[in-house]
Amino acid sequence: MDETAQGDPTPGTVRPGGRTARTRSAVRDAVLTGLAEHGYPGLTVEYVAERSGVHKTTVYRRWGSVEGLVADALDLAGEDTWTPPDTGSLEGDLRALAREVTETFGSASAAAAPTAFVAAAFQSDRAAEALRAFYTERFARCESVVRRAVERDEAPPGTDAAAVVRAVSAPLFFRALVTREPVDAPLADQTAAAVAIAVRAGAYLPARR
Amino acid sequence: MDETAQGDPTPGTVRPGGRTARTRSAVRDAVLTGLAEHGYPGLTVEYVAERSGVHKTTVYRRWGSVEGLVADALDLAGEDTWTPPDTGSLEGDLRALAREVTETFGSASAAAAPTAFVAAAFQSDRAAEALRAFYTERFARCESVVRRAVERDEAPPGTDAAAVVRAVSAPLFFRALVTREPVDAPLADQTAAAVAIAVRAGAYLPARR
Repeated sequence: MDETAQGDPTPGTVRPGGRTARTRSAVRDAVLTGLAEHGYPGLTVEYVAERSGVHKTTVYRRWGSVEGLVADALDLAGEDTWTPPDTGSLEGDLRALAREVTETFGSASAAAAPTAFVAAAFQSDRAAEALRAFYTERFARCESVVRRAVERDEAPPGTDAAAVVRAVSAPLFFRALVTREPVDAPLADQTAAAVAIAVRAGAYLPARR
Repeated sequence: MDETAQGDPTPGTVRPGGRTARTRSAVRDAVLTGLAEHGYPGLTVEYVAERSGVHKTTVYRRWGSVEGLVADALDLAGEDTWTPPDTGSLEGDLRALAREVTETFGSASAAAAPTAFVAAAFQSDRAAEALRAFYTERFARCESVVRRAVERDEAPPGTDAAAVVRAVSAPLFFRALVTREPVDAPLADQTAAAVAIAVRAGAYLPARR
């Protein structure tokens, strides 16, 4: 059915912004389910329309294509209220960040959406662009972790927050999505401890160019 | 044409093992080209047969399917003579390893095969298994880097070579294949310096479980 033809909202499904936001959210959920079940190559506008209950012509009009659907689902993922951990120490914050990654990839259901987005970016430039924007914004949110570490004398002023967050996340993403090895909490802790040592030593001041 | 019907080898194309190895290599080249041009979803046995000049029935008989083709191309990639750098210092070796990664992903042609393999692993369990085996073997080759570092008192005995190599490669793979950011030599050097500091401090002794 068309979004304009939808009946009263089911309790609990109304998001700020009303029907438009609800439609967008329903479409996003259908995109994630489709990506997880069929992968980017198997995702179609028809599937998203049927699964979300939003009329196909509405989906085409607002999102244009499968690429537009995936990019918008990523944009929507970036509009959450996630904030980085604040445990009182740099290593604690890094450990909590790393454990979020291992918990995500240690659970098939939690891993489905990020895995599907990363996979889609191999096949769609627009998905790749949306993924880059998502991570840029995520890294910006993590600046508070490094700012607090500098205030506590755990990191030299000028430390590159994005480089620190990449260093603590990357070995876990690498195992989960590249070398296809398992990840667990001890690995998260090892990675966090290693990065905290390097941060203190000034290794993540901006790379010299 | 069938491998048994191939004529005299073109100079320079004979590999150790003769016709069978040449057929396998031609098929591997066709798989890589197909993955780079069409991605895993667009790769077909028919394409590989036509591109390699090996008869379709031979391809089906020996490789079975597209999954088998990709897995064997990865197995073949793992049979090269690559050895890790030996520069005389841990940081020098790590820098050289990291720069190999940035050089690969800084060049579209060099990046095509590894990118295609990683992408294929999202869609094929057999490709994922072959990728894991490839990296396990690669990391084993890098044990000499850490063994020499231990001998030079640059790393504590028991340092986990695979963890060190993952740590120095992962932030660059992460940028190239997950966050879709550019990589360059200064980033390689920054990563190597950070990991060398953490290694010296004992951060890559086996993770406590």
